[in-house]
Amino acid sequence: MDGQPETAAALVIGNELLSGKVEEANVHVLAKALRGLGIELRRVVLILDDVEEIAREVAALAASHDWLFTSGGVGPTHDDVTVMGVAKAFGVGVVEDATLAKMLRDHYKERCTPGHLQMALVPEGATLESTEDVRWPTIRLKNVWLMPGVPEIFKMKLPVVAGRLGSGAAFLSRAVYTKMDEGDLRPLLDAVVARFPDVGVGSYPKWQDPSYRTKLTFDGRDAARVDAARDAFLALLPAGEPQRVE
Amino acid sequence: MDGQPETAAALVIGNELLSGKVEEANVHVLAKALRGLGIELRRVVLILDDVEEIAREVAALAASHDWLFTSGGVGPTHDDVTVMGVAKAFGVGVVEDATLAKMLRDHYKERCTPGHLQMALVPEGATLESTEDVRWPTIRLKNVWLMPGVPEIFKMKLPVVAGRLGSGAAFLSRAVYTKMDEGDLRPLLDAVVARFPDVGVGSYPKWQDPSYRTKLTFDGRDAARVDAARDAFLALLPAGEPQRVE
Repeated sequence: MDGQPETAAALVIGNELLSGKVEEANVHVLAKALRGLGIELRRVVLILDDVEEIAREVAALAASHDWLFTSGGVGPTHDDVTVMGVAKAFGVGVVEDATLAKMLRDHYKERCTPGHLQMALVPEGATLESTEDVRWPTIRLKNVWLMPGVPEIFKMKLPVVAGRLGSGAAFLSRAVYTKMDEGDLRPLLDAVVARFPDVGVGSYPKWQDPSYRTKLTFDGRDAARVDAARDAFLALLPAGEPQRVE
Repeated sequence: MDGQPETAAALVIGNELLSGKVEEANVHVLAKALRGLGIELRRVVLILDDVEEIAREVAALAASHDWLFTSGGVGPTHDDVTVMGVAKAFGVGVVEDATLAKMLRDHYKERCTPGHLQMALVPEGATLESTEDVRWPTIRLKNVWLMPGVPEIFKMKLPVVAGRLGSGAAFLSRAVYTKMDEGDLRPLLDAVVARFPDVGVGSYPKWQDPSYRTKLTFDGRDAARVDAARDAFLALLPAGEPQRVE
């Protein structure tokens, strides 16, 4: 077995999400991507477009996790204050990045306005991250990646993250489906949890599905241990179970 | 105009959400419901199934908001530790509620196990909230509502919340769709934001939609002010705009 996985947090920024006008869509995509990289997403915080609050959260989350991903607030309008918030969190200024400014001028040509050029502002000391396939840069300051809020663009940028991060073993997961309910499963699960403290055991009741009532999951980075935990659980099931194993 | 709206936070609990195995579905539903009640959702935190972390977050969020809604971790298995976390946050014990225990025994009859009866445990001093239509109680301790994680059941419980909360004016929203991009819109928005500090102005670029490029929103609880902000913005638009007004 290798060491502890790297950890990550996400800070999702946007009034439109908390007011229910727009449904958040990036956390799930990020969670799956990080899991594939062997990085453990441990906390997600959704807040309003507020510089002070962003600064406070970025400072706390970046200090307590290996990586922090912000989502949203990187456009050119008054409510796009993530760059300012991240800069404030690290006590640095906001400066125009010459590379980004040139890219914006080349892109908008004679239509380029001061509004567009706000997107060239970065926290002092930031790095621009890109790949050959994803050429428009993502701003990173130390362990903080400033990801866009628009889901289509957020998704597009994930390969850039994947290109830089994650050398650890990926997580893997096994699942068992049963028609037993959680109350009856409890002693069985307790026994497995006690024997396999290194395997994450989850129990998820399904609401009105004819094929099963509860899905049990076994998660870890050591395949042999994960399989052993699942098999130990299977051995405890009564006749007629399980419905399905994955 | 009436006073400040009540505030709320949500604490979403579940390893399965942070590992990307399950997509979170309750925050958006809650956000919309609270908005309809005139309550401002200001912060959402997603964490793992961990008693200490739940206790810490509940204590902080319940103290800084009028209402806190937890989602998840209220079933009968080893990873259902929300009741314990909430109790710990308020420094009270966990006790069996006689009403809940009776309901569980009546429901499961001779099949009732100690596992099932874990669902009768509540933080000491908790209230059971229900309505005529939603008879299975939701546990509430002071300003903290313990909502279930299963989305179908979460939704089912919202009318109970709505029956107890929200006497303030509901929020309302106007929208304007334009083909302008955010860089060009910026000076227009800045002008409106300066004149209407009491109206929330949002700007949301749409990715690859032929009918518009940016959606502008105007939000508040005073219809006259919201309409005035939208109209002030409309007056600044060039010929050929807007594409659509809502």
